[in-house]
Amino acid sequence: MSDTSKPVIGIIGGTGDLGSGLAKGWAAAGYKVVIGSRSREKAAALAPELGAGVIGEDNVGAASAADIVVLAVPFASHDATIEEIKPAVQGKIVVDAAVPLVPPKVSTVQLPGEGSAAQIAQRLLGDGVKVVSAFHNVGAAKLHAGGRVDCDVLVFSDDKEARAAVIEIAGAVANRGVGGGVLANSAAAEALTSVLIWINRHYKVPGAGISITGLEGAAQA
Amino acid sequence: MSDTSKPVIGIIGGTGDLGSGLAKGWAAAGYKVVIGSRSREKAAALAPELGAGVIGEDNVGAASAADIVVLAVPFASHDATIEEIKPAVQGKIVVDAAVPLVPPKVSTVQLPGEGSAAQIAQRLLGDGVKVVSAFHNVGAAKLHAGGRVDCDVLVFSDDKEARAAVIEIAGAVANRGVGGGVLANSAAAEALTSVLIWINRHYKVPGAGISITGLEGAAQA
Repeated sequence: MSDTSKPVIGIIGGTGDLGSGLAKGWAAAGYKVVIGSRSREKAAALAPELGAGVIGEDNVGAASAADIVVLAVPFASHDATIEEIKPAVQGKIVVDAAVPLVPPKVSTVQLPGEGSAAQIAQRLLGDGVKVVSAFHNVGAAKLHAGGRVDCDVLVFSDDKEARAAVIEIAGAVANRGVGGGVLANSAAAEALTSVLIWINRHYKVPGAGISITGLEGAAQA
Repeated sequence: MSDTSKPVIGIIGGTGDLGSGLAKGWAAAGYKVVIGSRSREKAAALAPELGAGVIGEDNVGAASAADIVVLAVPFASHDATIEEIKPAVQGKIVVDAAVPLVPPKVSTVQLPGEGSAAQIAQRLLGDGVKVVSAFHNVGAAKLHAGGRVDCDVLVFSDDKEARAAVIEIAGAVANRGVGGGVLANSAAAEALTSVLIWINRHYKVPGAGISITGLEGAAQA
């Protein structure tokens, strides 16, 4: 069931592993979710499996329908997808969850020259879009298994209100969202993804994540 | 009390906040610790306050006396200090704990062009030195308060045995050491330091850290 006081969440790359897992989690938490895909047919076919009321559209359709647009596409299609949805997301919050992995060495940190995928997104989208970076370290397998994932979600943005809005939706799919500072700090979470892939392989675990310690008694913010 | 089966740990920059905190922790865990400083007198005066048997030397003296050499200097003196101790650390493990903060914006990630401070250290020290990266995210205040710090320590190296040796000494000052992959992955922990500084300020906590989730039942490694 969806709640009209909550933002509509559009997920670009919503038929992928992370995108569909996030859709499932937000639908279960009562959000209206629209998944987008290059193929509208594919998205429409998958949508009902992810929860009651989940709708499938093409990427531009999902971006147009949503209040908060989550970008969950492989880094190889990151820039082209951003150019495609750019007109539909002006004035909105765009949450970049793309990780700049460079195959085949996905367990080695190889950040882009610009610093982070999130900073590239902000440059391409322009100042009319509030770019937030989050969800890089949430295990897709755990999302599909149902229930909230046992990890924290670091949330970065140059816009305070946009950061707060994404901290709130993060708390619906993981233990909690934790603000991590300006958009440039996204480099930390993007780099951590390669570290967590290495840990999964080395320690033979399905979905390592991170938790922030020392926040007991923290000021609300 | 020190244990002769354990490696001797030398701490370059051992009179600083992080260095002296680590010295205190390792001394309490039974390691023989030699702290180094630019001023031998300063190190010798502080050493007895950090634990029984802690010795103070100049930086080269501490590097010469140790099996494992920990570099805990500000990034501004990182390269010069490495050049100074280079002859004394050939064949040894050097643990780079330096964080590439760029004042005044220390809560904004600003990684060096080479990727990480640790990769700079490896290049300067040459292939005869096993560089490991660790301890970027351990709160010095918590070390000085005594007891192990409630966080995990990510440990990066291109050398498997060196990584294992540092994972072991990390477990003496924090919850545990966790391998994080190759030295290039140090970028993640170095970037995280700025994120944690931001979190400390924003949430008004004294020492945020990280913990790796999902390691229950992990293979020993």
